[in-house]
Amino acid sequence: MEGVDYLADERNKAEFSVDDMKIVWAGSRHALEISDRISRLVASDPAFRKDDRTRLPRKELFKNTLRKAAHAWKRIIELRLTEEEASRLRFYVDEPAYTDLHWGMFIPAIKGQGTDEQQQKWLPLAQKMQIIGCYAQTELGHGSNVQGLETTATFDPETDEFVINSPTLTSSKWWPGGLGKVSTHAVVYGRLITEGKDHGVHGFIVQLRSLDDHSPLPGITVGDIGMKFGNGAYNTMDNGFLRFDHVRIPRNHMLMRVSQVTREGKYVKSDVPRQLVYGTMVYVRQQIVADASCALSRAVCIATRYSAVRRQFGSQNGGAETQVIDYKTQQSRLFPLLASAYAFRFVGEWLKWLYTDVMERLQASDFTTLPEAHACTAGLKSLTTTVTADAIEECRKLCGGHGYLCSSGLPELFAVYVPSCTYEGDNIVLLLQVARFLVKTVSQLASGKKPVGTTAYMGRAEHLLQCRCNVQSAGDWLKPNVVLEAFEARATRMSVTCAKNLSKFENPEEGFSELLADLVEAAVAHCQLIVVSKFIEKVQQDIPGKGVKRQLENLCYIYALNLLHKHLGDFLSTSSITPKQGALANEQLRSLYSQVRPNAIALVDAFNYTDHFLSSTLGRYDGNVYPNLFEEAWKDPLNDSVVPEGYHEYIRPVLKQQLRTARL
Amino acid sequence: MEGVDYLADERNKAEFSVDDMKIVWAGSRHALEISDRISRLVASDPAFRKDDRTRLPRKELFKNTLRKAAHAWKRIIELRLTEEEASRLRFYVDEPAYTDLHWGMFIPAIKGQGTDEQQQKWLPLAQKMQIIGCYAQTELGHGSNVQGLETTATFDPETDEFVINSPTLTSSKWWPGGLGKVSTHAVVYGRLITEGKDHGVHGFIVQLRSLDDHSPLPGITVGDIGMKFGNGAYNTMDNGFLRFDHVRIPRNHMLMRVSQVTREGKYVKSDVPRQLVYGTMVYVRQQIVADASCALSRAVCIATRYSAVRRQFGSQNGGAETQVIDYKTQQSRLFPLLASAYAFRFVGEWLKWLYTDVMERLQASDFTTLPEAHACTAGLKSLTTTVTADAIEECRKLCGGHGYLCSSGLPELFAVYVPSCTYEGDNIVLLLQVARFLVKTVSQLASGKKPVGTTAYMGRAEHLLQCRCNVQSAGDWLKPNVVLEAFEARATRMSVTCAKNLSKFENPEEGFSELLADLVEAAVAHCQLIVVSKFIEKVQQDIPGKGVKRQLENLCYIYALNLLHKHLGDFLSTSSITPKQGALANEQLRSLYSQVRPNAIALVDAFNYTDHFLSSTLGRYDGNVYPNLFEEAWKDPLNDSVVPEGYHEYIRPVLKQQLRTARL
Repeated sequence: MEGVDYLADERNKAEFSVDDMKIVWAGSRHALEISDRISRLVASDPAFRKDDRTRLPRKELFKNTLRKAAHAWKRIIELRLTEEEASRLRFYVDEPAYTDLHWGMFIPAIKGQGTDEQQQKWLPLAQKMQIIGCYAQTELGHGSNVQGLETTATFDPETDEFVINSPTLTSSKWWPGGLGKVSTHAVVYGRLITEGKDHGVHGFIVQLRSLDDHSPLPGITVGDIGMKFGNGAYNTMDNGFLRFDHVRIPRNHMLMRVSQVTREGKYVKSDVPRQLVYGTMVYVRQQIVADASCALSRAVCIATRYSAVRRQFGSQNGGAETQVIDYKTQQSRLFPLLASAYAFRFVGEWLKWLYTDVMERLQASDFTTLPEAHACTAGLKSLTTTVTADAIEECRKLCGGHGYLCSSGLPELFAVYVPSCTYEGDNIVLLLQVARFLVKTVSQLASGKKPVGTTAYMGRAEHLLQCRCNVQSAGDWLKPNVVLEAFEARATRMSVTCAKNLSKFENPEEGFSELLADLVEAAVAHCQLIVVSKFIEKVQQDIPGKGVKRQLENLCYIYALNLLHKHLGDFLSTSSITPKQGALANEQLRSLYSQVRPNAIALVDAFNYTDHFLSSTLGRYDGNVYPNLFEEAWKDPLNDSVVPEGYHEYIRPVLKQQLRTARL
Repeated sequence: MEGVDYLADERNKAEFSVDDMKIVWAGSRHALEISDRISRLVASDPAFRKDDRTRLPRKELFKNTLRKAAHAWKRIIELRLTEEEASRLRFYVDEPAYTDLHWGMFIPAIKGQGTDEQQQKWLPLAQKMQIIGCYAQTELGHGSNVQGLETTATFDPETDEFVINSPTLTSSKWWPGGLGKVSTHAVVYGRLITEGKDHGVHGFIVQLRSLDDHSPLPGITVGDIGMKFGNGAYNTMDNGFLRFDHVRIPRNHMLMRVSQVTREGKYVKSDVPRQLVYGTMVYVRQQIVADASCALSRAVCIATRYSAVRRQFGSQNGGAETQVIDYKTQQSRLFPLLASAYAFRFVGEWLKWLYTDVMERLQASDFTTLPEAHACTAGLKSLTTTVTADAIEECRKLCGGHGYLCSSGLPELFAVYVPSCTYEGDNIVLLLQVARFLVKTVSQLASGKKPVGTTAYMGRAEHLLQCRCNVQSAGDWLKPNVVLEAFEARATRMSVTCAKNLSKFENPEEGFSELLADLVEAAVAHCQLIVVSKFIEKVQQDIPGKGVKRQLENLCYIYALNLLHKHLGDFLSTSSITPKQGALANEQLRSLYSQVRPNAIALVDAFNYTDHFLSSTLGRYDGNVYPNLFEEAWKDPLNDSVVPEGYHEYIRPVLKQQLRTARL
């Protein structure tokens, strides 16, 4: 039955132009062209096959990833791909590898923290991959609290060297990707000590392995930290540990853009503003938000297609059963995730703009918007990754039993995605940073300081604290300003309540720590408002293509009203809306689900994912699920023989009552 | 540092008798004695070692499980263990295996559905494991909708046989555990067809494999369905597929307790009430609830101990950092899960009682409480498994980055647990059954029918629909009746609202399907009330042991008030409480967290889990986390050599710019 499209009927139902939606999703015609071309390139190259990933034992899995990384680099060179194309290619190879850290952390760290001279020395080597680098920050005992790192880099003026050392077990570097088995170099973060004084954490370029035979250099103990969640998942990556026993590096291997140590051992700050490092942070986090929309859309694509293929119950007179996508329970769980995928895509797009804005301002030494931009990216990183991790698992459950099979693609997607909730800032810690910023913003309102950017709405606090939502019918919930004001009122009221409760404590820090849980909720309310407002901004733009705008509007309201329903307690307890209005929002949601239903398959087709990328028996474009489940099953090693290994030793003696003499 | 207890300080803080709490948790002194003895037996037997599980490839993993199952059976025989002890031993071996289905489904199916004669024939064979059986119900295309199964069992009067057949691809049996590689027999469910008429789904005992050489019998195609979520997890189980090509079995292999086919091919119902099968369902589901409290408590034990070991931020003057368990954010996420573990333990205990009650009534042909008992067990299965799955993942996140390592034990625990949300009734489908029952109960109130059991509160609907919560201070939330009434009011009002909204539809089924999402929420509210009320009943009993009752009271209120906070929208939109009262509940919660904090470690010690059972570097009894993380890491196959396999083929050519000529 190859070549038959089991979802053709679904595709015919669509009320909008999928091709135009693909452009909207990709961000531009140009971006779509590249994605489309590169994803097909990867999909058609047998060297990038990945369906065997969950069946390989660790060593083979890892070796296979090394092969793919080399092959990818070879193709990048042969085809003279641009940087953008190369990065897309690595993305579609879809396998965590040391190259992620080399290109995504090692090189950017040198660019961001190295002097011009250092960049001239190291970047050409790294960009040709004559050295391979990783980013060695996290320690066994120190994750979120970077300032608590224990690794030391003590300057020795006699030899003009730093001595890198791991003074305790907990100071061992632990987690850095690419470190365990591959990297020849690392940017290592440790406490800079010179003239007997601890100047806090700084970065140093340290060579780890010989460029001749790859053996670790003297004084260095390095290895892999072991199996992680999932079958393939992140086990393709050599997350590593690293211990230094008084390893010496030249003084100029310290990354010296922001501060330096002189030949004499003096610690000197350069005139480069320290704030520049925040630029990198904003960059990394906007990338994480973009990745969230990608992972989420991938899971949603699988669950949506399978929900249209799968039928259960409701057969009348022996006819076909009901497609599970037609059940309101399925819709009320699935469609908000579909809407979230689009919501995160657009807020990610906006964050890209924010990054360029921040960088331009930094170049012009304008630091005014930095705290707000920092809080905003921290909050959105936290919100989008938490939601995406939960949503992937929800999509797995929406696929019923078969979602539990690795061949569904969803277990792997979940396992490989969840670390996003922890790395680059633990999601709860980040929300507390947001909350701190919000409380500060509230406290400065009295002094007339005007909040900027995504907190600008707080400038209208006086109005937002006493306004009343005037929704009277379900249809009123389709008015952008009504929705926006409800979210603004809720967020403002929660922040203001937190600030008020904090002011009851004599010691503000004690109050902060007592009210942490409330503060987190206020931060979430603020972050959700940002996503809602950016989605609304998006759908208020001109969007070409038949029916495209209409679909996005539906998704936008599903996103907002579902949040409102889920967090109804917030909205009601702050009197931002009434119970009756909450019920009307629910009513409107149901109607929106019905409107999305015929477009659901087309809305996930618009992500333009290849079957290779999805790597899912359930999410196949053609919907031909069942024969492919069988095909994948047969590939399991257990099916190599009809009678399993171990029958004679461990099954037969049980059946034949011969255990007493059996050797187990 | 072996032998040092890093958590001794924490243990000294406890304000209650841990030994007495252990008895409460176990259910009785007798149950504790057995658990304690058997768990130590398993832990001290090197044959049951399981720390290598996540590193084994599928075939070795599976073979290893076969070995353990045989060894367990050998020990059970040698030590002449009672049935209770044997079942505990299999539990503490802690590895899904074919024996789970043999003892848990195959034998009970014969007991429940076989005639006395059939039981006499098959049970001795099964109980000596001279045959090994599984439970072949689910098909590739049919999970929840058992009545839609496609496998046929057609009676052939000429030979006095049934012909078992798989007429379509989707009719293939798919998922049954123990089927893929081990079972010699199965209870197969298929449509009974005789005299040209389809009599619906019935069970048949079918031999699958030769007892001589284990090869599949003619007409049978059988195999393993492939890798599932997680590393070890359920991959130790041979979930299988099975296709029949006109396989013939004697007529008397049909399980004939409830209905029979005569020699002539007549379909006859016996006088045994069909309702008896519900007894089995209640039994299986009460077991699932008990398992939920076990899995949840295990995850909570790991996360709580590690939260006391882990320190981050808050160092003053170079002193130790703050234990993460001291942060209110950590407490507000962790302690409700600790409370839920206890809550599920007690509701599970009550369900055990309910099962015996149901069975006694069934024997006496009293079916009046059956629908309520059925709805109640369905709802509690759904509620406890959903919460537990999410909670394990939350515990993993509470362990920060290290929770992502398999050696933390949490990824495996999650992966092995999540199928509970799907098997024995998809959790959403089950909630809809509950909702249907609730709506029916509401509609019968007018006719004066008195609701029974866990719906008895609806008999006071008139009062509950208009009562007002009179909480005026945070302390008022510690009154059992106040809490109970708030939950009863919320549940009643949600059910009644659903019933009202349903009555607006001309076609009730259409209304039901339109309002599915609301109905699910009403069902959840009802199920939460059951758990809260059973917890309150428990703490109102006499509970011996210093301070034990006090701790349980704290946990009971944490359980209830945290639910109230999480579902604040329900309580406010039904006017069951006011926003002010919601805020007071929050205040009381914070105070309860502070009271639990010094007892947290002792409260998880009371689960009495061995380090073998926990199998977690982070959850060790002695808290000696970091050296053990290292020890586990070194065991990874990638650390067999310093320079990884693949260096010469795939890393060196990259570094040396020799890719053009490399063979990849």
